[in-house]
Amino acid sequence: MGQNYKEISKIALKRREAAIPKEYLLPESALKDLPRDLTTIPRSSGHFTPEELEIIESNAEDILIKIREKQSTSLDVTKAFCKAAIVAQQLTNCLTEILFPEALARAKFLDGHLEKTGQVIGPLHGLPISLKDCMITPPHPSSIGMACYANEATTDETVLVSVLKKLGAVFYVKTNVPTAMMMMETINHVWGETRGAYHSGTSCGGSSGGEGVLLAMKGSPIGVGTDIGGSIRIPSAFNGLYGLKPTFGRFPIYGTKSGISGQDFIYSNNGPMARSLDIIKLYCQAVLSSEVSPWYLDPKCVAVPWRGDVIQPKGRKLRFGIISDNDGEYSVHPPIIRGLEMTKKALITAGHEVFEWEPFNHPEMAKEVNSSFYTLGAAAILDLTLKHDEPVYGSMKNYEEYFKKGEHGTLGPTRLREMIIKRNALQKAYMDKWTGTAGDGKEAMDGIIVASSPWTAPRLGLTQKTFCVNFTAVYNLLDYPICTFPVTFADKNIDKERSGWKPLNEKDAEVQADYDAEFYHGTPVTLQCVGRRMEDEKVLEMTGIIADVLKAHS
Amino acid sequence: MGQNYKEISKIALKRREAAIPKEYLLPESALKDLPRDLTTIPRSSGHFTPEELEIIESNAEDILIKIREKQSTSLDVTKAFCKAAIVAQQLTNCLTEILFPEALARAKFLDGHLEKTGQVIGPLHGLPISLKDCMITPPHPSSIGMACYANEATTDETVLVSVLKKLGAVFYVKTNVPTAMMMMETINHVWGETRGAYHSGTSCGGSSGGEGVLLAMKGSPIGVGTDIGGSIRIPSAFNGLYGLKPTFGRFPIYGTKSGISGQDFIYSNNGPMARSLDIIKLYCQAVLSSEVSPWYLDPKCVAVPWRGDVIQPKGRKLRFGIISDNDGEYSVHPPIIRGLEMTKKALITAGHEVFEWEPFNHPEMAKEVNSSFYTLGAAAILDLTLKHDEPVYGSMKNYEEYFKKGEHGTLGPTRLREMIIKRNALQKAYMDKWTGTAGDGKEAMDGIIVASSPWTAPRLGLTQKTFCVNFTAVYNLLDYPICTFPVTFADKNIDKERSGWKPLNEKDAEVQADYDAEFYHGTPVTLQCVGRRMEDEKVLEMTGIIADVLKAHS
Repeated sequence: MGQNYKEISKIALKRREAAIPKEYLLPESALKDLPRDLTTIPRSSGHFTPEELEIIESNAEDILIKIREKQSTSLDVTKAFCKAAIVAQQLTNCLTEILFPEALARAKFLDGHLEKTGQVIGPLHGLPISLKDCMITPPHPSSIGMACYANEATTDETVLVSVLKKLGAVFYVKTNVPTAMMMMETINHVWGETRGAYHSGTSCGGSSGGEGVLLAMKGSPIGVGTDIGGSIRIPSAFNGLYGLKPTFGRFPIYGTKSGISGQDFIYSNNGPMARSLDIIKLYCQAVLSSEVSPWYLDPKCVAVPWRGDVIQPKGRKLRFGIISDNDGEYSVHPPIIRGLEMTKKALITAGHEVFEWEPFNHPEMAKEVNSSFYTLGAAAILDLTLKHDEPVYGSMKNYEEYFKKGEHGTLGPTRLREMIIKRNALQKAYMDKWTGTAGDGKEAMDGIIVASSPWTAPRLGLTQKTFCVNFTAVYNLLDYPICTFPVTFADKNIDKERSGWKPLNEKDAEVQADYDAEFYHGTPVTLQCVGRRMEDEKVLEMTGIIADVLKAHS
Repeated sequence: MGQNYKEISKIALKRREAAIPKEYLLPESALKDLPRDLTTIPRSSGHFTPEELEIIESNAEDILIKIREKQSTSLDVTKAFCKAAIVAQQLTNCLTEILFPEALARAKFLDGHLEKTGQVIGPLHGLPISLKDCMITPPHPSSIGMACYANEATTDETVLVSVLKKLGAVFYVKTNVPTAMMMMETINHVWGETRGAYHSGTSCGGSSGGEGVLLAMKGSPIGVGTDIGGSIRIPSAFNGLYGLKPTFGRFPIYGTKSGISGQDFIYSNNGPMARSLDIIKLYCQAVLSSEVSPWYLDPKCVAVPWRGDVIQPKGRKLRFGIISDNDGEYSVHPPIIRGLEMTKKALITAGHEVFEWEPFNHPEMAKEVNSSFYTLGAAAILDLTLKHDEPVYGSMKNYEEYFKKGEHGTLGPTRLREMIIKRNALQKAYMDKWTGTAGDGKEAMDGIIVASSPWTAPRLGLTQKTFCVNFTAVYNLLDYPICTFPVTFADKNIDKERSGWKPLNEKDAEVQADYDAEFYHGTPVTLQCVGRRMEDEKVLEMTGIIADVLKAHS
């Protein structure tokens, strides 16, 4: 038995505490009688100067231009986000490692370089980028919410971190995740629980939950998350953000800390999260440029540079399938139904086609994903958490069950091959269904619009009992690119409880029974736009088109 | 216990026998006192008309033009190859299913279509294509050398078969493979042993061995093989052919019969084999065209159409690494050393750069590949072969050993994850080594030139004891595209036994002790050209450049 997790946690928390510049902290008095929507606090608190507010409320793409044109410095920008990140930390507990001294030195270096040479070092020159805790920035620990790693120095930089550095990024904070990044809300025995931004009684999502809430709190202009069952998209949804889970192989993943290292039945992936779509596009273009050529840095990357204007002819009308109520197992909460209707209406008004898309094999696929994680991840996770006596969270009890079956209780070569054959057949069936939408002189549908989750943002702790990643995980199994987009917010005056509605099953009834128009008022309604494999560029273009029609229609 | 394999084999052999048109057979008298080089027989036998000889000795790309320009018909071409395939079958035992009635009907249909419309139905219009036995052409059995499948009707056509059909191909024969396609020579308990073409006492290779020898015997203009450890390249090498093992995900693989179904630790792949490089290029371009878009048919295909002229600027000088003697574990036979020297010299003379490339981690990678097949394939194969009492061949004894350890004796989730982590690290290390060849103002090396095997074509049965797929299998683990190219033939007057040479180990000594200049005289020297992942087009262009300099230099 190693050191108890409580002792380990104390050391980590002390390190974090010591890294916080006291002048960035909101005074204790400002922390009393907080509103439930925390996103208003940076502006309302009086804690930020107008200049700081202008920076943190800007979109990242505008910040880049200002730095390049010397209207801002990277140092000022970095300082403002450092301060905003600390306020976000105070209010939501979203940070793990705080890297301010090196961030400020880096910003100064970049400012000096621009001053001296007149040149930026890359398209992300001077931009602070927040990183999910699993991105390794040596020598800082990368705990991924586990005591065993919490205070362990790291040595090998994640390939993506090296790439972003080369492009000009400034790293200043790492953000909290659930234990082993395998829950849909952000809580662990090292750093504790991270709360939501739009309603502090709700979850910030997971596993890139610290990232999500930091962005919603304007403590970051763009962050990097990872996604194996929805870990970019769930927190993007709960925090009203754009978040891209790309096709596996487009972006470098080598050297990212994994909760279930060596698991490749379902690919783990990383992608950008932000309040604006333009910075997401810019990020993709920068990382997948010929200058970077990540396919020479990561053996899993395919040599396909980012492409522009893939929807041709430009301006053509699109065909969308929409899943407008349930996935066959879970029905979404009323505000999300409304968001789906709004999106459908806006698209149709703009001349696009929207038809109902059957959630073909969705519950079965979600089940395959979850059970593969239990099978392949039980020992990977429990071997480590048990060492430090970490209790098992409610939504991770299945890992414990599988762990008890022992190393040979759940998987041998035959079972593994059966799993793979089934997964591949599910991929083929869904592809055929999609391809089958072509006909009558029409091309196949362009994309799918679907909820990100049954909830706008579930109350804290709820998902420990009612765990549902169905709406996101199916697209990990399928390896389709997918981007979240914010539509609106739950409104107690419009989004009434369902009435005269028949649940699909007990769990469905449970999820819907939890809906409370008053409680969920103000939480974000964020949907997903899905494309076919390798159509990452198209997904972002489609997402942009959807965002535009929603804007025009509102 | 099911039916004994001998009974099953009898039924299969009888079916094959019955499908052979008697008039295609060489007379019994012609089968006496055969020369050891069987490739000369079609021409020397007097069995073929001059028109038939012209057809079977033509390159496939020329046949396509002649059909398109109505100088030939698909029917005449198909008949000629049917006849030549039967002669090849008589001499080497290379066929499994014989599909002549449907092939002739298909050829007539295509001729009629061209006659009526003036149009070809696709770029492969009218061309006979031979298929490795694992390509499913319902309702014909697809035995993959196993009794359990030998007489079983099939229902689901392999995606690639559908694609080739759409492009205009005519299917007329399927070709023999070793049991479960997991040996490097072609022998099984259903169809028996397939012999080599250039020396009937040598192996035709495996697992696409029937394909290889059929092509060398001019019984096919182009064939499709599969490759998981060298199964396209080993028979291409032993039969003096061009054979492409592409990057996984470029070509559709869905619905191919597999020896270890659901195994994806090392990807199984398919690709074309032929006597000319041009038809290989044409095949790739046709299959990966936007018209076919295989990425909408197979979920593992990436949407990257075939690209032309990727080496830019055109005519620029290339940089090759060469592995000129051994891979760290096995040294090649003298004729292959000479082939490597010839290639190096020809390239340097033409102004290209050739430097020694360290076979970095090669033996370790080969070991990982082999042991993964035993681990993941033991039950997959033995469960089926035992049912029909099939004896286990010498080179498959390891499968039996692993099978005896039981379903949970060799693999649990932790071991699986360790295997994957190690594989990925090996991929990364090799990539970094390759990327590291850039410097001093030079781009990274363009390709690697390496032997296909220690042997030109080993004596029949030898690889049951001395199994070595090192030279091919490492590139399956790395998932690099790779094409074989014929260089020359072993020459007893030049290729003397090594003298004063120190073996690397016992097995290395054993392989070299087997070398006999007299015995191996006339067997083909065929090397491999390797590119980086996704550089399939570049590999074929480089192979063309190598073939040209070899021609110019000879």
